Amino acid sequence: MTHHKRPYADYQAQHFLWSVSADGKLATLTLNRPDRKNPLTFDSYAEIRDLFRGLAYATDIKTVVVTGAGGNFCSGGDVHEIIGPLTKMSMPELLDFTRMTGDLIKAMRACPQPVVAAVDGICAGAGAMIALAADMRIGTPQARTAFLFTRVGLAGADMGACTLLPRMIGQGRASELLYTGRAMNADEGLAWGFFNSLHESGAVLDAAQALARQLADGPTFAHGITKKLLHQEWNMGVDEAIEAEAEAQAICMQTKDFRRAYDAFVAKQKPVFEGD
Amino acid sequence: MTHHKRPYADYQAQHFLWSVSADGKLATLTLNRPDRKNPLTFDSYAEIRDLFRGLAYATDIKTVVVTGAGGNFCSGGDVHEIIGPLTKMSMPELLDFTRMTGDLIKAMRACPQPVVAAVDGICAGAGAMIALAADMRIGTPQARTAFLFTRVGLAGADMGACTLLPRMIGQGRASELLYTGRAMNADEGLAWGFFNSLHESGAVLDAAQALARQLADGPTFAHGITKKLLHQEWNMGVDEAIEAEAEAQAICMQTKDFRRAYDAFVAKQKPVFEGD
Amino acid sequence: MTHHKRPYADYQAQHFLWSVSADGKLATLTLNRPDRKNPLTFDSYAEIRDLFRGLAYATDIKTVVVTGAGGNFCSGGDVHEIIGPLTKMSMPELLDFTRMTGDLIKAMRACPQPVVAAVDGICAGAGAMIALAADMRIGTPQARTAFLFTRVGLAGADMGACTLLPRMIGQGRASELLYTGRAMNADEGLAWGFFNSLHESGAVLDAAQALARQLADGPTFAHGITKKLLHQEWNMGVDEAIEAEAEAQAICMQTKDFRRAYDAFVAKQKPVFEGD
Repeated sequence: MTHHKRPYADYQAQHFLWSVSADGKLATLTLNRPDRKNPLTFDSYAEIRDLFRGLAYATDIKTVVVTGAGGNFCSGGDVHEIIGPLTKMSMPELLDFTRMTGDLIKAMRACPQPVVAAVDGICAGAGAMIALAADMRIGTPQARTAFLFTRVGLAGADMGACTLLPRMIGQGRASELLYTGRAMNADEGLAWGFFNSLHESGAVLDAAQALARQLADGPTFAHGITKKLLHQEWNMGVDEAIEAEAEAQAICMQTKDFRRAYDAFVAKQKPVFEGD
Repeated sequence: MTHHKRPYADYQAQHFLWSVSADGKLATLTLNRPDRKNPLTFDSYAEIRDLFRGLAYATDIKTVVVTGAGGNFCSGGDVHEIIGPLTKMSMPELLDFTRMTGDLIKAMRACPQPVVAAVDGICAGAGAMIALAADMRIGTPQARTAFLFTRVGLAGADMGACTLLPRMIGQGRASELLYTGRAMNADEGLAWGFFNSLHESGAVLDAAQALARQLADGPTFAHGITKKLLHQEWNMGVDEAIEAEAEAQAICMQTKDFRRAYDAFVAKQKPVFEGD
Repeated sequence: MTHHKRPYADYQAQHFLWSVSADGKLATLTLNRPDRKNPLTFDSYAEIRDLFRGLAYATDIKTVVVTGAGGNFCSGGDVHEIIGPLTKMSMPELLDFTRMTGDLIKAMRACPQPVVAAVDGICAGAGAMIALAADMRIGTPQARTAFLFTRVGLAGADMGACTLLPRMIGQGRASELLYTGRAMNADEGLAWGFFNSLHESGAVLDAAQALARQLADGPTFAHGITKKLLHQEWNMGVDEAIEAEAEAQAICMQTKDFRRAYDAFVAKQKPVFEGD
């Protein structure tokens, strides 16, 4: 640990719940205004952004699960607390806002921890974008995911939707969802590759945490490299991506985890990774 | 309306049918040589290109449906009227032709109106590319879509097929279709994300027009922004796309449609969008 | 044929099997250490790389099938012959290795011949990357494809996996496979677009060779252009891709194969392509 890093197990969340496993590796962020289906506010956007920015320097957290309380994921930006004020803002103020929400997505993609979203019920607007920005998504049969910006008179181009969604489910399906704002149901989400799997409401958080646990107990330094390359290669050519991976993987080959895996294999044991 | 813009409800088409809804918002372009399954000719290529270029300055049309008469979408470039002459051309003449066909696709992607293709029967060659360049595609169980350039001795690289098709249905499936020229049937097209939905032949145009009507009655300025961003972000990095969307969405937040949606929500009414 | 080109029908393979059809057009590369499920070694990596580099100058071979002997495709880098030595290498030596393996993928993408992988049984690590770098993939119900780098303590970023796999099966599914290293079964591979089709073990090589034969008997110069454009357009904008295809297709319109197709059509015959 160096002076610019710190643990996040004791992070005191103001606008959501933050719980960390006993070993400090697995964090769960729960949007927690269940009476309103967990909407976002100016304050919660900013805090989530700052938290993910901070996680780049965490000494403990290895994976993050994002979920919502009370059977819904997130209803997006609150109409009264967000949309009302936006209708009165000047252009510089509006750009401040849209950049802040975009920065939340950038921070989720930039932190080294893989993020798993556990999605039940309503998953709408900015909430759908948070789910989309996760590395993997576990849903329930009741999950309804709507990129509904067009329903409030806006473009489907919000927080990176026009680049992220087509790569996740295909350009034609993404176009329909972004132009119409209609909800994608759970079966569509699974068939189209938005969800990695579906589980009943009572089991979805456990499933997401089990996946996150598996990754947290894996070679976490290498996972951070995987995440970085998945991000950096978004608009690289194939040859440039191959060179980037040659350099990245050579770095990973000098980690102790690589040696641990080899030694375990030779000893016919299961490797115990430590993330260094 | 400024001096460089004009209505297109009264556009007099020479080489296809052009009909516009009573309110002027929804246009339907029908390829109309049903005895030959609606092939393209030098003249029809050029007119469609010019029409879509013009639509960027239309004061009325908000969405466009493209379809074919008589149970087929389009059989592609006519063998006698197109391929025969091409076999006799010089390189500059050939490049003139391939650039013209490519410009048709560029114009479809550049106009602000979302384009919906209603595809029945044969959808081949340049016809398949027109369908692919639409924002969304509604098909029938009889739709057979073939990027058959290889069957006439050419590359699968035509009018943008090698960039558009992989993003629509995946790189591996696109490779097979482009190398072999085989027809993709309707079930494949739906499962792979080429078609957004399938309807019986008698209902496919209605379904496409209903989707186009929904968009035409929505926030059409914002739809034009969505289309522009889906295009511009094709080869952007994630972070650059997020900044582009922050700027684009801030623009949309100063439209009247955004205010209309908020006011309607507060009044518990359905918003009436006007596209400004 | 020019002085810098030569036939590959008589290529003498050292570390795999190489067989060529009687007409010299269709080559089959068989990984052949079936007792160990066909692992790769330093020598076999390098020889496959050099062979695909050479094929850019082949006067005979038009398509290549890659397969494995004895019911498995490839188990990846051999633990004893590859991973053990890697744990002892310096950074420059490691980068030499990762660049060599990446160069194998670059060479597969750069040669003009479409490559078809016939995948049965285990398809793991570098073997999965070879299958992924093929233009098309034919599998069996027993195919198990694992990008298992994370299982040996490394990143999923290996040989271009983070750019190739998301474009093949979608970003979300690719993320899961690359972070967890879990095997993708054959049904998933087909549903997700990794496999073009599935056949029983006894029939998969025949199916791959039939597809390769179809391409070898087609306009092979044009196929090479298709392959080049599929590669070059990976990170181009749509408009730039359309211009690249206009130029590429104009070149193909001056081939004899284009004329042959037209003449055959007029004569109501099947065209016989010769690849020039």
